[in-house]
Amino acid sequence: MSELRWDPLKQHWVIIATDRGRRPRDFQVEPETGTLTNCPFCYGNEDKTPPEIFAIRPDGEPNQANWRVRVIPNKFPALRIEGDLRTRGYGPYDVMEGIGAHEVIIETPDHDRQLADLSLPEITDVLIAYRTRILDLRGDPRFRYLVLFKNHGKRAGSPISHSHSQLIAVPLTPPVAATELRVCQEFYEAKERCIFCDVVQFEIAEGTRVVREFGNFVTVTPYASCFPFELRLYPKRHSYDFALLSDAELMELAQALKDMLCRVKSVLRDPPYNFILHTAPPRQQRLGKPEYWGSIEYDYHWHIELVPRLTQIAGFEWGTGFYINPTSPEDAAVFLREVELDFV
Amino acid sequence: MSELRWDPLKQHWVIIATDRGRRPRDFQVEPETGTLTNCPFCYGNEDKTPPEIFAIRPDGEPNQANWRVRVIPNKFPALRIEGDLRTRGYGPYDVMEGIGAHEVIIETPDHDRQLADLSLPEITDVLIAYRTRILDLRGDPRFRYLVLFKNHGKRAGSPISHSHSQLIAVPLTPPVAATELRVCQEFYEAKERCIFCDVVQFEIAEGTRVVREFGNFVTVTPYASCFPFELRLYPKRHSYDFALLSDAELMELAQALKDMLCRVKSVLRDPPYNFILHTAPPRQQRLGKPEYWGSIEYDYHWHIELVPRLTQIAGFEWGTGFYINPTSPEDAAVFLREVELDFV
Repeated sequence: MSELRWDPLKQHWVIIATDRGRRPRDFQVEPETGTLTNCPFCYGNEDKTPPEIFAIRPDGEPNQANWRVRVIPNKFPALRIEGDLRTRGYGPYDVMEGIGAHEVIIETPDHDRQLADLSLPEITDVLIAYRTRILDLRGDPRFRYLVLFKNHGKRAGSPISHSHSQLIAVPLTPPVAATELRVCQEFYEAKERCIFCDVVQFEIAEGTRVVREFGNFVTVTPYASCFPFELRLYPKRHSYDFALLSDAELMELAQALKDMLCRVKSVLRDPPYNFILHTAPPRQQRLGKPEYWGSIEYDYHWHIELVPRLTQIAGFEWGTGFYINPTSPEDAAVFLREVELDFV
Repeated sequence: MSELRWDPLKQHWVIIATDRGRRPRDFQVEPETGTLTNCPFCYGNEDKTPPEIFAIRPDGEPNQANWRVRVIPNKFPALRIEGDLRTRGYGPYDVMEGIGAHEVIIETPDHDRQLADLSLPEITDVLIAYRTRILDLRGDPRFRYLVLFKNHGKRAGSPISHSHSQLIAVPLTPPVAATELRVCQEFYEAKERCIFCDVVQFEIAEGTRVVREFGNFVTVTPYASCFPFELRLYPKRHSYDFALLSDAELMELAQALKDMLCRVKSVLRDPPYNFILHTAPPRQQRLGKPEYWGSIEYDYHWHIELVPRLTQIAGFEWGTGFYINPTSPEDAAVFLREVELDFV
């Protein structure tokens, strides 16, 4: 059973995932990585995972080989699908059961190819799997926010080297999303514009932090980057919900995403990285309160955020929430722009 | 020059410390570590650091050997002492010069002894150096908050192995501190009690997360720990400001601190860790606004927070601000309590 616990001093919820029960010695060994023969994400090992939720395969039965993208429940989920959403008090704290969903998107059957290495049709398939699972999980009214993210490399938190992403549905709006959703709505109420549209237009006009434009997409190094070589990928035209993109739009996004991943891989020699998709929650789930539902189509702007894991989060950053970045985003953009790519 | 940049979407300031100018290849090599002969923090190498700000030495001249604790300015400071506090606009963003102070507290002249290994009088000296520097930097009205922290081990962000702590003065209240200061005041206004006193009393009565009591001090694993084996060290009696502690109180704190560090070292085999001191800012600097000054003596409670760096902060945590902790604090407390220590 996992549990959500509220810290009244820090004002945040934490997931205590005791199912994963880590003892001191578990932190002293490197986690095992799969090999071609025993990796549960490889062809032929479909029975080593829980039954699939979704797959893209030309034909054939579920849970057999011959798939291109496969989505399964996480075998050690941080949150479970069954349980009770009510919170209860415990001394000065609050606690609730750890309700949610935790899925793994296996991006390719090939053990040795990472997302950046896949072809454009293959990356488009991955994006279609993202869209499909997001639309499905939105049907559960208990989930208030969906977090789609990828950890690449051990130092970015991925013990399994076979390329995959994750989708976690949570029963409350996480703090980073809550701030973003509130800022967008307040800006819209004051100015009747999308704040992200302002930022994107300013960055394109300014140019010093633009890494690449690709049709309707632009990749920039954020002005107030917390980490060296941080990147954001925005649609240029206003678009609030990733899950509403057409297949043609996902094909264009696949190009922009592959371009971003290949530049990072080239400049920083295949660093560990994390990326996360920020997209609008279903309007009636926005911050859980009707007063926030109104304008989400107009005020929010979906995007992807990527951070290469080059530096350690040290005492200062963790203790203050205040980041020190040793590489200016303008310098990072110069290095990232210089890469010559030949895939398109 | 470093710069503070405001992200209007994420609502945070970031320090872009371009003086440290990191290029892509700088992230591909391990930082150099000092050895006994070239370490700038060792005896005899006092001229390899900027001139000292403060030292505890029985006798002798500044910047010579024979010191017990030595405080110097950081050679590569994240923030500089000179400059202008005013912010200016830049498109949708704000920016200000990176004003502040950044000091290094060298805890011992011995290259091979870490803070946990020092004797109680030696740790007391370190705490006296903390107090002295905090009281001095408070005299500069440009600084709104002081962050005293320690990074132990490379994975906790410390490239230099010679034992040291850091003190950074910042011209604005960092987000974590701002939340804490606001919560304490709101709780006090509603109940005329200190919220930390409630938490400490509840934890002592409950017992399951108490690791050790030591006179006026108690070490606990926090109920909503974000990380495995996270610890907090609290004074049991209400006390809002670390810098007001007497020498006798610092001697008692030295015992509790050494106990905490030795337990972590023993259970987790000398893991990398960070600790940070949370203490009250000068009342007239609290959140920069007079309405927050009133009750700080009554509503705030200083403490030390420690996190062993056992897990990676991955995409989910970074992208949401929502943490998944695989070890319950109750289990962590059991392991930490079991350690037999012989220093007291």
